Amino acid sequence: MISFQKMDASHINHTLKELRSDAIGLLQDLVRIQSITGNENSVQQYLAEHLKSMKLDVDEWNPMRKDLENHAGFSDDGLPLGERPVLVARWKGVQKEARSIILNGHVDVVPVGDENAWIDGPWSGAYREDQVWGRGSCDMKGGLVSGIIAIQALQKLGVNPRGDVILQSVIGEETGGVGTLAAVLRGYRADAAIVLEPTRMAICPVGAGAASFRLHIPGRAAHGAMRKEGVSAVEKFYLIYSALQELESSRHSGYRHPCFQQEELVAPLSVGKIAAGDWPSTVPESLIAEGRYGVLPGENMKAAKSEFERTVQIAAESDTWLCEHRPVVEWFEGQFEPAET
Amino acid sequence: MISFQKMDASHINHTLKELRSDAIGLLQDLVRIQSITGNENSVQQYLAEHLKSMKLDVDEWNPMRKDLENHAGFSDDGLPLGERPVLVARWKGVQKEARSIILNGHVDVVPVGDENAWIDGPWSGAYREDQVWGRGSCDMKGGLVSGIIAIQALQKLGVNPRGDVILQSVIGEETGGVGTLAAVLRGYRADAAIVLEPTRMAICPVGAGAASFRLHIPGRAAHGAMRKEGVSAVEKFYLIYSALQELESSRHSGYRHPCFQQEELVAPLSVGKIAAGDWPSTVPESLIAEGRYGVLPGENMKAAKSEFERTVQIAAESDTWLCEHRPVVEWFEGQFEPAET
Repeated sequence: MISFQKMDASHINHTLKELRSDAIGLLQDLVRIQSITGNENSVQQYLAEHLKSMKLDVDEWNPMRKDLENHAGFSDDGLPLGERPVLVARWKGVQKEARSIILNGHVDVVPVGDENAWIDGPWSGAYREDQVWGRGSCDMKGGLVSGIIAIQALQKLGVNPRGDVILQSVIGEETGGVGTLAAVLRGYRADAAIVLEPTRMAICPVGAGAASFRLHIPGRAAHGAMRKEGVSAVEKFYLIYSALQELESSRHSGYRHPCFQQEELVAPLSVGKIAAGDWPSTVPESLIAEGRYGVLPGENMKAAKSEFERTVQIAAESDTWLCEHRPVVEWFEGQFEPAET
Repeated sequence: MISFQKMDASHINHTLKELRSDAIGLLQDLVRIQSITGNENSVQQYLAEHLKSMKLDVDEWNPMRKDLENHAGFSDDGLPLGERPVLVARWKGVQKEARSIILNGHVDVVPVGDENAWIDGPWSGAYREDQVWGRGSCDMKGGLVSGIIAIQALQKLGVNPRGDVILQSVIGEETGGVGTLAAVLRGYRADAAIVLEPTRMAICPVGAGAASFRLHIPGRAAHGAMRKEGVSAVEKFYLIYSALQELESSRHSGYRHPCFQQEELVAPLSVGKIAAGDWPSTVPESLIAEGRYGVLPGENMKAAKSEFERTVQIAAESDTWLCEHRPVVEWFEGQFEPAET
């Protein structure tokens, strides 16, 4: 066994350089396999082969809803489980009691938005200006590849780890983290863990949480030519929206944390999706808004949600229509607790 | 031939009462046949049979896009033509040069909105509290049935009209009136015409126009956790929306017409549909709003549209983002000129 500490730095650099094109190629392959949350099977099959070729012990299983849904950390993304394998590859350490590490990454990506806004398309894996392009190339197939290449580099250098190195390729991170929960519940623990999220090489020991919300705003339909006989849910929404914007700013005023800049928006409240109406000439009778409500590090998730709900209801009380036709707040999909290590 | 003027009023009333259940039954049948604009074929087939059974001369044809699209009154609803028959039934008058009349009604209806908000469902044709319920029972299968029953009553009373009575059952009224345009272009003219729209028995010699608009508001996508790095199209929309609300009120201030009340909203501007974003945690990169822009009687449609477009662009200029990323206004589907007789 060669000791890493005694190795020549130029030898290490040389090995890493040699692996550079392998890393780019692997990332391109992964980006090209579409894997929006819920459709992670193909990319995991590809990765399973790759990890086996590295002679790691690969554990691959399909987590089932019934095994997860009663856990406090379960976040229901409304997607089925069963055909969405989680992969854990173990590089066995040479000393039994030595300290172990987990490298954790996810393969699922969020929807692509306007495909026309992509120069080469969302699944191109194009390599331009020293960067790989396409959904997931940064968040976080890129991170996952870093972890895999780190192991390959160590293998090539002839280093054997003292403790276990456990690489996790998980699913469903974007909607609440069912994959990582499944890995924890299957018994994968270690002395340390690095989540390979893109952070521009910054160490992030603290993270805000977030809760996905769905707001239902009621209106009353009428023909647009008599719009005063109806109540526009679009108009009423903006009343609530303004109140939520004020909530975001009041929650941040006075918040201090050593890891954040004074003026930083640590836990933003962002509306990501709205839909109202089904006909240009009908006053919309309902509006549904979905978004992300940031939860401050150290804050209690339940209390944060109550504050949100209270804000909505207080805003509703100021309006004669909404007072009688209350907006409804629903919490759905990703519910991420804030975390600090 | 019996002269209508010399007929006993109680005889007329009696005949109308006898036809009452026929009228209700016919309306129920029509309401039960789904006919959202674009899908008028089944209901027209049903009506064709009914009109033939009344011994009227029925002309039924499928208007084609190429025959209509170059006409100034053509309003493109984006729907295909070809399987959407127009029906015209002629009750021939006994005198060649006598004055003729058109009774015009449409069979298409707008989408149903929230189906759960309907007690018996949108296509029930349920008869409760002296009313028929369901999409189109008022606007305007109800009106159409009035026209048909009026002819049936006259037939039953033994009256023969001097001039032609031309009943038109048209399509595509809700999206711009292709059916009526097709009937005009096929040569159907008369000395008078009654459009059988529901007006609570009021005579409506003047009507505001309307133009359907589609507004594209650009934003910039970013993860909701870093929402300040993006630009929310939802937020930017409200700037434009407020400007449009002001436009509506400034257009009405000072407007006077003898047929309208002083404070009446003659030509409302109403947003009927909005959609933005595809993921709760992504700052929405675009918003599309569709609505109805009222055009005042006597107003020039082109000038009204320019005023709308100018308002949007002036509002955009007040914002650093929208100034560089201009909203786009599109006119689509129903473009109805204001009218006065």
